[in-house]
Amino acid sequence: MIALPDALQRELAAVFGDGWLTDPGQRLAYAYDNSRRQSLPDAVALPRTREQVQTLVRACRRHRVPVIARGRGTNTTGASVPVAGGVVVSFERMDRILEIRPGDRCAVVEPGVLNGDLQAALKPHGLFWPPDPTSAAFSTVGGNLACNAGGPRAVKYGASRDNVLALTAVTGAGELIVCGTATTKGSTGYDLHRLLVGSEGTLALIVEASLRLTPSAPARAALRGIYRDVSSAARAVARLMAQPVTPSMLEFMDAQCVRLARDVGGAELPHEAGALLMIEADGDAHTLPHALEALRRAAAGDGLLALDDAVDEAAREKLWAARKALSPALRTLAPGKINEDVVVPVSRIPELVDGVQALASEFDLPIVCFGHAGNGNLHVNLLYDPADVAQDQRARAAMARVFALALALGGTLSGEHGIGLAKRDFMPQAVSAQTLALMRQLKQVFDPDAILNPGKLLPDA
Amino acid sequence: MIALPDALQRELAAVFGDGWLTDPGQRLAYAYDNSRRQSLPDAVALPRTREQVQTLVRACRRHRVPVIARGRGTNTTGASVPVAGGVVVSFERMDRILEIRPGDRCAVVEPGVLNGDLQAALKPHGLFWPPDPTSAAFSTVGGNLACNAGGPRAVKYGASRDNVLALTAVTGAGELIVCGTATTKGSTGYDLHRLLVGSEGTLALIVEASLRLTPSAPARAALRGIYRDVSSAARAVARLMAQPVTPSMLEFMDAQCVRLARDVGGAELPHEAGALLMIEADGDAHTLPHALEALRRAAAGDGLLALDDAVDEAAREKLWAARKALSPALRTLAPGKINEDVVVPVSRIPELVDGVQALASEFDLPIVCFGHAGNGNLHVNLLYDPADVAQDQRARAAMARVFALALALGGTLSGEHGIGLAKRDFMPQAVSAQTLALMRQLKQVFDPDAILNPGKLLPDA
Repeated sequence: MIALPDALQRELAAVFGDGWLTDPGQRLAYAYDNSRRQSLPDAVALPRTREQVQTLVRACRRHRVPVIARGRGTNTTGASVPVAGGVVVSFERMDRILEIRPGDRCAVVEPGVLNGDLQAALKPHGLFWPPDPTSAAFSTVGGNLACNAGGPRAVKYGASRDNVLALTAVTGAGELIVCGTATTKGSTGYDLHRLLVGSEGTLALIVEASLRLTPSAPARAALRGIYRDVSSAARAVARLMAQPVTPSMLEFMDAQCVRLARDVGGAELPHEAGALLMIEADGDAHTLPHALEALRRAAAGDGLLALDDAVDEAAREKLWAARKALSPALRTLAPGKINEDVVVPVSRIPELVDGVQALASEFDLPIVCFGHAGNGNLHVNLLYDPADVAQDQRARAAMARVFALALALGGTLSGEHGIGLAKRDFMPQAVSAQTLALMRQLKQVFDPDAILNPGKLLPDA
Repeated sequence: MIALPDALQRELAAVFGDGWLTDPGQRLAYAYDNSRRQSLPDAVALPRTREQVQTLVRACRRHRVPVIARGRGTNTTGASVPVAGGVVVSFERMDRILEIRPGDRCAVVEPGVLNGDLQAALKPHGLFWPPDPTSAAFSTVGGNLACNAGGPRAVKYGASRDNVLALTAVTGAGELIVCGTATTKGSTGYDLHRLLVGSEGTLALIVEASLRLTPSAPARAALRGIYRDVSSAARAVARLMAQPVTPSMLEFMDAQCVRLARDVGGAELPHEAGALLMIEADGDAHTLPHALEALRRAAAGDGLLALDDAVDEAAREKLWAARKALSPALRTLAPGKINEDVVVPVSRIPELVDGVQALASEFDLPIVCFGHAGNGNLHVNLLYDPADVAQDQRARAAMARVFALALALGGTLSGEHGIGLAKRDFMPQAVSAQTLALMRQLKQVFDPDAILNPGKLLPDA
């Protein structure tokens, strides 16, 4: 662990004033993220302007000191943990919504604005920003962009990368770059802004984002399908995705989840349920019943045991109860949980879920799968006791096999959480040597002295 | 103009056999594109495999010979004209549809497949690939990806970049890279495949594409709105885009276009029309009438003179007649046309159209605007006589001012045509010096010896 050079310390203390934190107690709050990893930064900077960010990056570059961008630390991969020390840049004071332009379907924001605060500001305009991670109420737009956050709505409305028009950012070289334009179409040179999305602060620090907005549908309604087994549910997912009414959510729970939601969470679910789909449509009062009917037709088929309707919001909440009962129920099974978010093509979901259950048997640890079926993006939750060394080893070995399985099925390591520390060692399995070499070269272009978020996303060479 | 070294010539003739063209008559067919620029390549290669592409790039790199990828040359910017000689790689023999997976909403294709042939193959599955440039019947998917082609449907379904999941490509270093995965979500490292889209063959040659498909709506219907002036039409566009039923097309014609379509093309249009909108909805038999009603409500407002319905396909064709009459009508005005496709935020359309009309007066040349209003992507058509030196100079000067205007309104140079030769000199106005420097460095990573499509997209340093 490095300590900051005196000259750097003095320079940045003068620039940031009360936005420069060096007290260990203050720094501790910026040492960890939701991965439960922890490493103390040498200092924390709270910029208010892009000029301050640029000054900071340039100063740190002169001294070869790491710079780690941070939203609110809700990510699960360790991507915002300062494992090599250095300066954490927390964007909590750059949290303004600069502009909302309804006719252009565009909002311009600073990176530290909370996703939930943005949605609240958009609501009176009848608009929303599609990314809706579980953390939305307390995660920042900058953090959402850094890991390409998604959520249930992504099946219809896309994830973060699909919903950004332009970014202003400071590279690791300390240059301010403007990528993209605040228009919904563009073919003017290389697409840099989508490259920055999902790059986890390893290429540049985003200081302003022009976001693509979507008008909110005035109404929504849900169906709950209970299926005999995973493969009949997965066939229904494929049917649902192959017809023109794209569901606004399409969530999956495997048999283990259904059992937990029923036995531990108290949800009303039949014993013979082998899998469950939550299917949601949105529209207006006229179109919604017909959209729902189209989804009902697609959901029906061999292996469907029951299809329940929720036409109003109260009934809808009741159907979601099973999903909501799940997380508390999981905690009763084991003190530790590894939650990874692999993706496979929709048609390979049955093989993924069956393969995961075989791994659960082989490694003698419960694994439950749920998540965003319409994107083939499943959350694979492995439950274990981290204090038990043998279980801890088995858990890690099993998770490595889950990744290998997803890749063998034509999928990838992450759909919306990103790579961070947690999955970087698996990158060589997911990405060819040539492609990985190119990614390293790109990193060097943006960050020639490798000061931005070292140790994340790319594996050690 | 270089001639090929003998050793290279021999090596590639042996690799390509009858897919190696050196006869001047044969080469002439690969010398131009729809920009009407022309420059003879030293040879033309017609690969059948990615291995052949890789061998070719590596051989050309050893000899520092330019490599220019080519679909069917329908682009309008000169991007596929071999201005520095070298080898044109035409993908006409790599035209297979390798896989269509309806449940995954995915098709895997070689780059030379025609957009129209792909659409025909997808139709029985109830699916389509959204990009629909006017050239669709005779332009390739590879070419569409190279310039990020769009079309009228992009307003609802996105352009090429929004509809690609993964690409396999050969870089200028001769390395085969695989970018992205054939899943609809991904957060695994840097997003390289969207970076390749729109890069006009300057970074890598695409040898395989996994495309994101969309289910076709079974029915569509159109409205034609006649407005008093551009600003009332533009306000209608903003209202249409701010409500939840996104039109499947939203096309604009200015007063000049309306007049031409009526007086020269014979379309039935009122004399007082200052602007026209073609508004289309898609859906099924149940939802379509309600979608159309929502669009009708949004289209109505101050300045609307008439709103005509087309509920069936015949009536729809009749409404489109005005648009179709336009291109032949333009030709009667002047022998030459510069057609650029600037983009501005939707709310700035009136300023763009008014500004363009002011330029038409100032430079004493007719300029007509039409295009994809929902994306703010207008085709600005400047009509002149290229044989008249004074007109030719005025036309170029006027077009430079059109670009400056679009940029001043927060827009960009191109929405779907790309940069190529035609607009590269304007890149420094559109992209900051720091960002342009970064683009040049990225180019160098992918193409260290600058052999891929030299002289395109990026301006001379």
